[in-house]
Amino acid sequence: MAELKNDLILRAAKGQSVERTPVWLMRQAGRILPEYRAVRNSLSGFKELVETPELAAEVTIQPVDILGVDAAIIFSDILVVPEAMGLTYEMVEKKGPWFPKTISSENDFANIRVADPNELDYVYKAIEHTLAGLNGRVPLIGFAGAPFTILCYMVEGSGSKTFSKARKMIFQRPDLAHKLMDMITETTISYLHAQVDAGVHMLQVFDSWAGILDKDLYKAFSMPYLERIADSLSSRVPLTLFAKGAHFSIDDLASTSCRTIGVDWNTPPAYARAQAGPDKTLQGNLDPTVLYADGKEIAKHTIKMLESFGSEKHIANLGHGVYPDTNPDSVKIFIDTIKSYEHDKNQ
Amino acid sequence: MAELKNDLILRAAKGQSVERTPVWLMRQAGRILPEYRAVRNSLSGFKELVETPELAAEVTIQPVDILGVDAAIIFSDILVVPEAMGLTYEMVEKKGPWFPKTISSENDFANIRVADPNELDYVYKAIEHTLAGLNGRVPLIGFAGAPFTILCYMVEGSGSKTFSKARKMIFQRPDLAHKLMDMITETTISYLHAQVDAGVHMLQVFDSWAGILDKDLYKAFSMPYLERIADSLSSRVPLTLFAKGAHFSIDDLASTSCRTIGVDWNTPPAYARAQAGPDKTLQGNLDPTVLYADGKEIAKHTIKMLESFGSEKHIANLGHGVYPDTNPDSVKIFIDTIKSYEHDKNQ
Repeated sequence: MAELKNDLILRAAKGQSVERTPVWLMRQAGRILPEYRAVRNSLSGFKELVETPELAAEVTIQPVDILGVDAAIIFSDILVVPEAMGLTYEMVEKKGPWFPKTISSENDFANIRVADPNELDYVYKAIEHTLAGLNGRVPLIGFAGAPFTILCYMVEGSGSKTFSKARKMIFQRPDLAHKLMDMITETTISYLHAQVDAGVHMLQVFDSWAGILDKDLYKAFSMPYLERIADSLSSRVPLTLFAKGAHFSIDDLASTSCRTIGVDWNTPPAYARAQAGPDKTLQGNLDPTVLYADGKEIAKHTIKMLESFGSEKHIANLGHGVYPDTNPDSVKIFIDTIKSYEHDKNQ
Repeated sequence: MAELKNDLILRAAKGQSVERTPVWLMRQAGRILPEYRAVRNSLSGFKELVETPELAAEVTIQPVDILGVDAAIIFSDILVVPEAMGLTYEMVEKKGPWFPKTISSENDFANIRVADPNELDYVYKAIEHTLAGLNGRVPLIGFAGAPFTILCYMVEGSGSKTFSKARKMIFQRPDLAHKLMDMITETTISYLHAQVDAGVHMLQVFDSWAGILDKDLYKAFSMPYLERIADSLSSRVPLTLFAKGAHFSIDDLASTSCRTIGVDWNTPPAYARAQAGPDKTLQGNLDPTVLYADGKEIAKHTIKMLESFGSEKHIANLGHGVYPDTNPDSVKIFIDTIKSYEHDKNQ
């Protein structure tokens, strides 16, 4: 594999000193780029893009070329895991994912299984294509959804404001909920190992719906599975946990073997650092809507963010995925502000 | 007006000592009760119920009779305010509110005005009917949406996971956003005064979408308007601010003249108390999905909540509106557990 020319993000994740703060954006490979839309519109749908390694690699690399980010993240979807387990999904335009079959009772387990990681072969092929295309320019991030977030979709069948069906299962059938979490976790661990085998340099686990639980329930119900994932993978590559909305659980996340904790834009950096302790790297957390402002305002907020997190153990990012109607020029201002900023190391 | 036989909630709100913790539920008048559904199904739609004072009063009183709560809250909707300002809304079954016209540019302001509070006369009539029907059994709570949450709907035109259009306006046209906030605030203040004139004993302001802003933006953009509302009303009746998701702003909310701060279920009670300081009353915060569990589990979580908040300056509630498919018997267990619980006052 080509030697890395830019390993800023890996060093930041490991807590090593860096010349400047590295930066990437969640959803950087996507609808913000006209170049992405051109590829996407040539296909029948989102899933065709996810499942076609050459094209997935192409859109993965686009933000490295066009925006100048310090890492690529493989273009895929967290829902490939439930699909490999037996629940296929459809991506409905403007509405989001939809699962024709869901898990609501004991009988529904007949439809699912712990997946053979080889079923997601197209992801590893996309990783290999991407690494060849990147040729060492920047590291490549692999990812998966956290078991709780995947359970939410498998039980609910679609997005939801409250995911009350999923939460109902936790309270009414904790045995089924834990059985499902266990199956998702086993699948996820072998899937992430296969991504590392294929060559990704780091991993991120997205617990997108963490914020609908409270601290105790998150600790009891989600944390043990996140710990299993972190413990299995952390010795191989640096792993980031991003539990969106779980401001109440940063201390628990910090107790795992992950290296980096994602911080959403609602969580003040100083609070996140106090909760996480001094050792972990923090990632985030500009409000994505700041990128709707003018350039001066974007630079101001970006610098404030950099100063709040400090010069080390920080990976700059937004506090959420970049919104699809964001102007790429505004993203460039965000990135360029970070790249040209010099921390006052004497402070 | 009939003398109040049960003023627990008012005393708790004022920080006075109480024999036991008072309890009510957000959305207690609603789809959880078969008696509500019977009234609702006899009508053409949700709005007919909101706009018919005798029926709005009937469903407002139902949870007092059936569930035994310590307060009624007038059956209405936060969206009557934007409607009175000129933007009518429709309540689309299973989808939520929808505004045919929205505010996205300067020109759209031609469609709206600071409302004459008399346009919401049906609400005050519903309050009068309710007070007659309650005959002093429990206090009646009036309410309105917070200006930021109302702006979200007026700009976005419907519910949204991100309200990115509303947040875009804040960054791209702060002048328009503040102009709109000002108009909503003026309307809301006169609307809430008219509710107090009609006889409500306390008020709650719901900032349902507070959690999509960060601390600085919430402070700059939402707090000044909440302060104006609190300052104008707090000398008349105790006022509660419930900024859902704004765990980061509890200290700011506590700096206003409100008496009570609503706490969502994600925010640990000890954290809320530390942020709010010792003076304010806190309201909340059981996870609504706990009511899906069996009776023993519900009682256990309810007692844990009571012990976390302590015996004074606490109004028991859920941390969000009760979910429509909740069994009323489970709500009864929640309420009865609170009513029969004796705090160890020596601790």
